[in-house]
Amino acid sequence: MRIKILSAIVFNLLFSAFSFAQTDDSVTIKKISDDILTNGTAYENLRYLCKKIGSRLSGSPQAQKAVEATFKMLQDAGADTVYLQPCMVPHWIRGEKEKGYIQTGDGTKHDLHLCALGNSEGTGKKGISGPVIEIKSFAALDALGTAGIKGKIVFYNFPMNPTYIRTFMAYGESGGSRTRGPARAAKYGAIGVMVRSLASNLDDYPHTGVTIYNDSFPKIPAVAISTNDAEWLSEKLKLNAVLSAYFRTTSTMLADAPSFNVVGEIRGAAFPGEIITVGGHLDSWDLAEGAEDDGTGAMQGIEVLRVMKALNLKPKRTIRAVMFMNEENGGRGGAKYLEIAKAKKEKHIFALESDAGGFTPRGFGLEMSATQITKVMAWKNLFINYGVYDLSEGGSGSDVGPLKEIGAALAGLSPDSQRYFDIHHAATDTFEAVSKRELELGAVNMAALIYLVDKYGL
Amino acid sequence: MRIKILSAIVFNLLFSAFSFAQTDDSVTIKKISDDILTNGTAYENLRYLCKKIGSRLSGSPQAQKAVEATFKMLQDAGADTVYLQPCMVPHWIRGEKEKGYIQTGDGTKHDLHLCALGNSEGTGKKGISGPVIEIKSFAALDALGTAGIKGKIVFYNFPMNPTYIRTFMAYGESGGSRTRGPARAAKYGAIGVMVRSLASNLDDYPHTGVTIYNDSFPKIPAVAISTNDAEWLSEKLKLNAVLSAYFRTTSTMLADAPSFNVVGEIRGAAFPGEIITVGGHLDSWDLAEGAEDDGTGAMQGIEVLRVMKALNLKPKRTIRAVMFMNEENGGRGGAKYLEIAKAKKEKHIFALESDAGGFTPRGFGLEMSATQITKVMAWKNLFINYGVYDLSEGGSGSDVGPLKEIGAALAGLSPDSQRYFDIHHAATDTFEAVSKRELELGAVNMAALIYLVDKYGL
Repeated sequence: MRIKILSAIVFNLLFSAFSFAQTDDSVTIKKISDDILTNGTAYENLRYLCKKIGSRLSGSPQAQKAVEATFKMLQDAGADTVYLQPCMVPHWIRGEKEKGYIQTGDGTKHDLHLCALGNSEGTGKKGISGPVIEIKSFAALDALGTAGIKGKIVFYNFPMNPTYIRTFMAYGESGGSRTRGPARAAKYGAIGVMVRSLASNLDDYPHTGVTIYNDSFPKIPAVAISTNDAEWLSEKLKLNAVLSAYFRTTSTMLADAPSFNVVGEIRGAAFPGEIITVGGHLDSWDLAEGAEDDGTGAMQGIEVLRVMKALNLKPKRTIRAVMFMNEENGGRGGAKYLEIAKAKKEKHIFALESDAGGFTPRGFGLEMSATQITKVMAWKNLFINYGVYDLSEGGSGSDVGPLKEIGAALAGLSPDSQRYFDIHHAATDTFEAVSKRELELGAVNMAALIYLVDKYGL
Repeated sequence: MRIKILSAIVFNLLFSAFSFAQTDDSVTIKKISDDILTNGTAYENLRYLCKKIGSRLSGSPQAQKAVEATFKMLQDAGADTVYLQPCMVPHWIRGEKEKGYIQTGDGTKHDLHLCALGNSEGTGKKGISGPVIEIKSFAALDALGTAGIKGKIVFYNFPMNPTYIRTFMAYGESGGSRTRGPARAAKYGAIGVMVRSLASNLDDYPHTGVTIYNDSFPKIPAVAISTNDAEWLSEKLKLNAVLSAYFRTTSTMLADAPSFNVVGEIRGAAFPGEIITVGGHLDSWDLAEGAEDDGTGAMQGIEVLRVMKALNLKPKRTIRAVMFMNEENGGRGGAKYLEIAKAKKEKHIFALESDAGGFTPRGFGLEMSATQITKVMAWKNLFINYGVYDLSEGGSGSDVGPLKEIGAALAGLSPDSQRYFDIHHAATDTFEAVSKRELELGAVNMAALIYLVDKYGL
C-alpha cells in the first residue's frame, strides 16, 4: 500500500461534511477521543499490569499487587476518592506443572500439551490412567451412560463452530464441555476428563478456564488439551479402538482468601447519589498475563475516569471505575459490589462492563428496558465516527450483571471478536497481543457512552 | 470472560429472526461464508508465501518464486485458465545492511535504527555526514531555503496524527515527508535525508517505502529512522543546536527486470466478455514478509475464485483473480493490466482491490458513479452480518485504479486500520501478525460483493 492521497482527501471531505452538523455532544466526544488518543495512559498502565505484575489469579500475591497498583493508577487518574471493597475469594492453586500423554497400542507415548481446568481437583501424585473415550455431544455421553463411561477418561471434543461470525456464540455453544463436562462425566463413573481447549485456532497451547463440580458426584480431575492434540487424538481414535491416557495434576482448592474490589470515584456535581459504574475485572488466569482478559477492560475503566478529569467534564452523577476481583473463578467481586450497594441503598442507574477483549470496538450490547434501548440507539450517529455502529440488545457482563437486581441499566462493550479465542485463557494472552490504538478506541467509545448517560440519564 | 450463555442465546434468537427474512442472496452468501470459514485455503497459502518465500521485492528471485507459487495456487483453486502477463519492473536493490548514528557535542555516538528508502540511491561506501536540521513541515523547509538547508542532512519529523480514527488519513497527511521529502530537500542543496518512519506506534523498527526523486535535482541518499530514534533525536535537538549525523547506504536502481502479473480466470457462463477483477499485489518490500501488505489481499483474491468453484456458483461474467506485480515501487503491474485490457478492447465492468491489510473487514470504499454507489449501498443488509457496515464513496486501490480510464467501477476493501501502520513496510509485517479468521472474513465479504456484482451487474 503506497500513499493513498485520494482516499485521504475523500475522508477529509467526509469529515468536513460531518463537522458541518456538529452538535455540542459531538464536539465533546471529539475532545474525549483526541485526548485519549494523544494523552491516554491505558496502554502504559496495561504494560505495568502485564509485565511488572503478570498473571493475577484470585488469592495470589500478584492479585494483591494488582489491587495496590490499580489503587495508585486511579489516584493518578484524578479520582476524587479511591477505596477498597474487601471480599473473600476462592483460592485455587494449580500446583506442579501438569503432564500427560496418550499411550498407543504399540506402546509409544504421545505427550500432550495440557493444563488443569480452573477450580479442578488434582489426580494425586501418581496421576491417573485409563482408556480414553471420545465424546462429541452430551447426548452421546448420556446414551453411553454408566455402562459406557465408568472407569474411563472422557475426552470431550467440542470444537468451536468456525462458521459463527460472532465467536462468543461458538464459545457459548461448546463451553459446556469445560464448565459442566467433568461433573456430567463423574455422574457416570468417569475417572477423569480431558477437554478440547475452547479455542478458535489450531495450536499447541492449552486454554484453561473454570469447571463447576456437582456436589452429588465425585470431583474428578479435569484438564484442557491443546486443539492440535485434540485433532491428533481424534484421528488416532478413528484408527484404534482402544487408547489409554495418563495425566497428572496437583491442583486443589484451598480455603477462601481475603481480597478486594478497587473503586475510584468522581463525585457527581448535581446528583451524587446516582451511580454510574464502568470497569472490568482485575483477576486473570494464572497461565497468562491476562492482557485481553481482562487487563484491557480494567485499564479502560480507569481511562474513562482520567479523561473526564483531564477535560474537566464535571459529571452530574457519580462515576465509578471498578476493578472487579474474581470474575474468572467465582464472581465474588461482582456479588460483593451488589451486596454493598444494597446495604447502602445506593441508586445505580447504569453500569458498563468491558470484558470481551480490548480489540477494536464495534458496538455495545444493551441489557436494559426497551425504552432505554431506544434512547441509547438514538445516539448512534455520535459513535459511528469512532467505529461503533452496532447498538443493540445483548449481554453486558458477569460483574455488572448482578446490578440488574437493583434496577441498573447494563451494557457491555462489544469489540471485534475474531482474534479473542485464539489467546483466551492461554499463555498467549500477553501484552503484545494488544494494540494501543484499539485499546484506546474502546476507551473513547466507553467514555462517550458514560458521558451521554451521565448528561441525559436513562 | 466466562461463558456468556445469555449472550449466546440472544445471538441465536437474533439469528433466527434474520433467518426468517432470508433471501436467495443471503442464503448464497451464508454458504460462501460457511465454506470459507471451514474450508478456506487463504491462510495456508499465505503461510507458504510468507514463510517459504518471504519478501518479494520486484525483480528479486523471491518475486519470481511468488509468481510461480501463485500460478499453482490459482490452478489448485480451480481457475479455468491461469496465465502470466509479462511486464518490466524497476529493479531496486538495498545493498549492504545500512548503518548510521548521531554524534553529540561531547563526541558520543547514538546508533540509529534505519533503512534506505525504496528507490533511493546510496551514499557510496564511505557514507555521508553533516549537521542535522529538523524539519516539521514543508513550509518550514521552504522558509529556510538554500541558505538554511545547503550541506545539511534534513531530518523530517512528520509524526502520524494519532487523533485520526482512520489511520490512512494520517498516513496520507504525513507521507509526503517520505515520497517527496528527499526531492524537496535536494532542491535546496541538502546532502541527505532522514525521515521519521511512517508508523502509528513507537518502536525500534524503521519502515521503508518508496521515495520519488525529481530529475531536476540530485538524487540524494535517504533513509527512514525508527519512531523511537526520531523522538530521541527531536529531544536532543531541543537541547543542542548542533548535532551531526552519519549514515551509509549502498542501495541503487538497476536496469528494469522482467516480471509478471499472475491471472486466474473463471470464464463467464452468460457474458464471458464482461470482466470482473479481484485481487491484490504480489510484490512486497524486502524488509518484511509482506503479510498484511499485501500477501493477504493477493490470497483473498485467490480465495474468491476458490469458493466460487467449490460452491459451483457459475458466474455469468468472467471473474479474474489478479496478483499484481510492482505495486510498491513502480505500479508497473497495474499499468500493464490496463495496457493489455485496452489492446484487447476488453470490457471491464468492476474491479475490487484488497490492499489495506487483511484485518477484520469494516466496509468497502466505492469509486464509481453515484448511481452505482446507490446500487451497491442497497445491498448493505446482506453484508452487516459479516461485519461490513460501511459502504460509501472512497478510494479503491492503486492497482485497479488505472481501469477507471476504461470505465470500470472500482472498489477497495476497508479493513480495520488500527494495527496496520504499526507494521506497514517494516520487518514486523510477518505471517504472525495475521489472524486467520480476519483474513477469511475479508474474503467472505469480497466474494459476496463479487457475487452480487456478477449477478446483478452495475
